[in-house]
Amino acid sequence: MKYQLIIIGGGPAGYTAAEAAGKAGLSVLLIEKNNLGGVCLNEGCIPTKTLLYSAKTYDGARHASKYAVNVSEVSFDLAKIIARKSKVVRKLVLGVKSKLTSNNVTIVAGEAQIIDKNTVRCGEETYEGDNLILCTGSETFIPPIPGVDSVDYWTHREALDNKELPASLVIVGGGVIGMEFASFFNSLGVQVTVIEMMDEILGGMDKELSALLRADYMKRGIKFLLSTKVVALSRTEEGTVVSYENAEGSGTVVAEKLLMSVGRRPVTKGFGLENLTLEKTERGVVKVNERMQTSLSNVYVCGDLTGFSLLAHTAVREAEVAVHSILGKEDTMSYRAIPGVVYTNPEIAGVGETEESASAKGIQYKVVKLPMAYSGRFVAENEGVNGVCKVLLNEQEQVIGAHVLGNPASEIITLAGTAIELGLTAAQWKKIVFPHPTVGEIFRETL
Amino acid sequence: MKYQLIIIGGGPAGYTAAEAAGKAGLSVLLIEKNNLGGVCLNEGCIPTKTLLYSAKTYDGARHASKYAVNVSEVSFDLAKIIARKSKVVRKLVLGVKSKLTSNNVTIVAGEAQIIDKNTVRCGEETYEGDNLILCTGSETFIPPIPGVDSVDYWTHREALDNKELPASLVIVGGGVIGMEFASFFNSLGVQVTVIEMMDEILGGMDKELSALLRADYMKRGIKFLLSTKVVALSRTEEGTVVSYENAEGSGTVVAEKLLMSVGRRPVTKGFGLENLTLEKTERGVVKVNERMQTSLSNVYVCGDLTGFSLLAHTAVREAEVAVHSILGKEDTMSYRAIPGVVYTNPEIAGVGETEESASAKGIQYKVVKLPMAYSGRFVAENEGVNGVCKVLLNEQEQVIGAHVLGNPASEIITLAGTAIELGLTAAQWKKIVFPHPTVGEIFRETL
Repeated sequence: MKYQLIIIGGGPAGYTAAEAAGKAGLSVLLIEKNNLGGVCLNEGCIPTKTLLYSAKTYDGARHASKYAVNVSEVSFDLAKIIARKSKVVRKLVLGVKSKLTSNNVTIVAGEAQIIDKNTVRCGEETYEGDNLILCTGSETFIPPIPGVDSVDYWTHREALDNKELPASLVIVGGGVIGMEFASFFNSLGVQVTVIEMMDEILGGMDKELSALLRADYMKRGIKFLLSTKVVALSRTEEGTVVSYENAEGSGTVVAEKLLMSVGRRPVTKGFGLENLTLEKTERGVVKVNERMQTSLSNVYVCGDLTGFSLLAHTAVREAEVAVHSILGKEDTMSYRAIPGVVYTNPEIAGVGETEESASAKGIQYKVVKLPMAYSGRFVAENEGVNGVCKVLLNEQEQVIGAHVLGNPASEIITLAGTAIELGLTAAQWKKIVFPHPTVGEIFRETL
Repeated sequence: MKYQLIIIGGGPAGYTAAEAAGKAGLSVLLIEKNNLGGVCLNEGCIPTKTLLYSAKTYDGARHASKYAVNVSEVSFDLAKIIARKSKVVRKLVLGVKSKLTSNNVTIVAGEAQIIDKNTVRCGEETYEGDNLILCTGSETFIPPIPGVDSVDYWTHREALDNKELPASLVIVGGGVIGMEFASFFNSLGVQVTVIEMMDEILGGMDKELSALLRADYMKRGIKFLLSTKVVALSRTEEGTVVSYENAEGSGTVVAEKLLMSVGRRPVTKGFGLENLTLEKTERGVVKVNERMQTSLSNVYVCGDLTGFSLLAHTAVREAEVAVHSILGKEDTMSYRAIPGVVYTNPEIAGVGETEESASAKGIQYKVVKLPMAYSGRFVAENEGVNGVCKVLLNEQEQVIGAHVLGNPASEIITLAGTAIELGLTAAQWKKIVFPHPTVGEIFRETL
């Protein structure tokens, strides 16, 4: 069978590309080996947010007296929390499927195998395609720590489906995934320890805000070991033993459960990528131009497989760019304003340059920042909670970065992303009327 | 005493102008007869949002089981809710005061009286000013309904400080203020009836979304009488009797309390405005140009007194424009993208043209809309709740209006306002990367 476009992988990049191309009238084949929606929808962004919202509801009820609401007894039902998560995921997967079929996308379940730049096999069937979009995503990276094979550990996948609360949990890797689970299990009363190799949690986020968030979670009982390397894993009757080393020496953490969240890496094997002679970058990933096109002009790569940002929203935009390129529409990918969000409570979100990245690039910048309490709405809705809004301006007073600690950082960070992408100066951005009272106004106040 | 700028009124327009001018080095006098912060901060935007957040917390706890959180008994303490509201207001008023004094603004408490375009008296003191900004705000309009003087009624002011819950409340006027109080008292278990003269609640908001919100509140027990005129008010032992007429005939509503929220109008008397010979518009309000300048070049009018939108955020922007004009900086006021928000639960927010306003102006437009359930995060955090996102595009595919029913509409509407103010087309707006999963993504999905 012959298609104008064959897409390998049905995550955010794949389903976005399929829907856009189908809507534009192309004949599209989408091959997915697991579930439509990919990691993001099935075992990432969406299920974690569903669990975290139950935790937020639980926290909200427990602390309702801050707002003069009295609640006598609060408990949660973890099995039901997990069941609701699965229900939400099913609903959204069905939504993705219906968007694709209504745009005449042919969906095939199975493992794709690239034969050449115009041929893909799946099962017994061979398909011809004018264009290929490869978006096979990423997978959890498990570091080769001595003893790792001798212990049971969770990845995000098992943590999402666990229905019995452990008494204690040690999380190796204090990045976004690690911290979202730390937040969830801390809210539910689990003793959580986070071990991070770097000197601060949350990798590429603003360091000052990350440290404030960490301090907040320390008060709520999470233990953090920073600049700490895990050197061995073993199992005893008391639980999993994590041996570590840091500047202060060596030690162990024993916990009932272990979650490995060190990182993720692109899936480059198992689908015949090696059958295409694609140019690679110095980092060993497939090289793409600003239209997401590889060195073979009919082959595109989008999403985590590019190795750029491993974020669903990056993948979505890349997919749109790739389809526009196939359709002959002018469009290019910009990585200038890709937001990053951590859905802890409070949330932390950032977009554009951090102080650290600007310094590393030698960009001259100025920082303006304010406590979130300068937003009247934040004060009204966040009793006893602090937060910070930080904006980075370059020498031309253009907004080049913004970072927020405080709810709903995830929703308002897009305002800053818009300003950065459009190259607005502080004065230009301030001419936009922000409704009062909103938390988003904090940007106007800060400028 | 002589100042470069004298400001009459310390609400959002006044304090914004004072801070900006003070920061720029002007000598500034601000005269306020009541409290700094004006109606918005002391008895409007902020206190209502504080009360509404307590109600939202109460609702959240009562319905926590939707998210697998079990809560045995929930109650509220209205006196404490009110006390917290007053504390939040005090904190924010102090914040405003400290921003002003740190920018060397002289604050005088008292009633200002304009003598001429350069002279203002307050108490025994006479002040000379190179420039005047008049921002005296607005006041509740009480219509001359027969019997209105014979009954006790609440305005928003009494409703905000009421510490004993009435069994029933009738609200005359289903605009923003009326509906926010209707939402608050409905959450707390009061039997609420809303009487509205127009054929839909919420005046200038999108009619379709307003009707959906109304249907939702009807399910929660609020009674609505639309296209209904109140013809008499009286008092009996059972409570206040509101007599009305509509197409179906006449009738009465009896309730323990009555809230009058028909509307507000500019405060034009009592501060010597008549001593300036200012040009007026056809509607009888002071005429200003796009720099907020009146027919006397050193006299500016900002905020509700202009009669344009009676919204704090409009006032804030107008004040910035006026100060820029005084400082000789190029800046003009744009009313193209003034958001409107109703902080019911769910919130409703809109910006730019509605279908009704576009039709009235003869603008050709196209509507694109989606249920909020197309946002994964909305689904994760709004169990059993519906909503709609509607975007209006003109013939050039530029965004000219956007309307959202669903939380947090207030925070995400600014994204649409930005697109409208900057004249973005749908295709340009879609090039902005929205973090996933967020409710704000609904705009990208809708386009």
